[in-house]
Amino acid sequence: MGKKMAFSSKAKSEFEIREGERRLDADPATAPPDAGVVFIGRVSSPWTERSQCPKNMREAGEKGGGGRISLGPAYAPGLQGLDKYSHAVLLSWLDRSPRDLIVQKPRHAETAKGTFALRSPVRPNPIGMHIVRILGIDMARGVIELEAIDLLDGTPVVDIKPYFASTDSIPDAARPPRDGA
Amino acid sequence: MGKKMAFSSKAKSEFEIREGERRLDADPATAPPDAGVVFIGRVSSPWTERSQCPKNMREAGEKGGGGRISLGPAYAPGLQGLDKYSHAVLLSWLDRSPRDLIVQKPRHAETAKGTFALRSPVRPNPIGMHIVRILGIDMARGVIELEAIDLLDGTPVVDIKPYFASTDSIPDAARPPRDGA
Repeated sequence: MGKKMAFSSKAKSEFEIREGERRLDADPATAPPDAGVVFIGRVSSPWTERSQCPKNMREAGEKGGGGRISLGPAYAPGLQGLDKYSHAVLLSWLDRSPRDLIVQKPRHAETAKGTFALRSPVRPNPIGMHIVRILGIDMARGVIELEAIDLLDGTPVVDIKPYFASTDSIPDAARPPRDGA
Repeated sequence: MGKKMAFSSKAKSEFEIREGERRLDADPATAPPDAGVVFIGRVSSPWTERSQCPKNMREAGEKGGGGRISLGPAYAPGLQGLDKYSHAVLLSWLDRSPRDLIVQKPRHAETAKGTFALRSPVRPNPIGMHIVRILGIDMARGVIELEAIDLLDGTPVVDIKPYFASTDSIPDAARPPRDGA
């Protein structure tokens, strides 16, 4: 344990390679893309440093502080009718994360796990999925006010969808007990 | 009602412009992208034609027929540990959908709605979000067997995440009554 190696670039300096981790041979950040995304807006949040940013929406709800999605003017008409929903699915682009770890060891975990078994921001396509509570929508300004958000201030937004309990809510979904528990 | 205009390209021929719909001035499909995605795998499903493909995961569950996610060899190690979860979040790339409608009128709806108030595949970034039940995982082959899936055969995959009921399940999320109800 504890053998650590810093990444070279500034963007990656907050992330380290830990024991048992595995890197992709081809970094998706620099590989030729298969398709392109456009940023439709940005998130505003109270979190400007990684260390203070809540790690998930449960923690974000506990810390509070609100949040906001601001869409570009061209995309604002897409919000029409979303005010009838209490919750939305926010898809973000986690632009400050490296993309080349396929097996990772979270800081407080005992063992390394596959990227697709983790909600880590480090993933081949750094798309964050957040179920957010909508407090209000300003159609004219293209703004959605949120109760809370687990994203750094300024994070790009790539999609917003209405949340449907009928297909998206699985209250009894099973997960393993916490590491070390 | 009923004034319809066909798209010109083959890819768009299954989609039409309906009354009240609004198109983006700049088509995100041809605009310079802000970031690139890599396809990490493909979905196999029984659905080869749009007309037979279930429109959501509830309908997919009713029709059954199973489904499968096959990851590229480089990405297969990312599945390590996902077998401990009953459900996953699948993010797909809906590569057969146009991207330039910001207000849409679903076929059976009375009024047009904003794209971000719909789960339509037509959106600026055509990323599908599907909560899937995992039947089994073959780590060596990079394959996840699914109970059901509402995607056309061959649809690209951009991310897989473990489903956490604690943050992703909102059983009492509110939505408006169905159009016309």
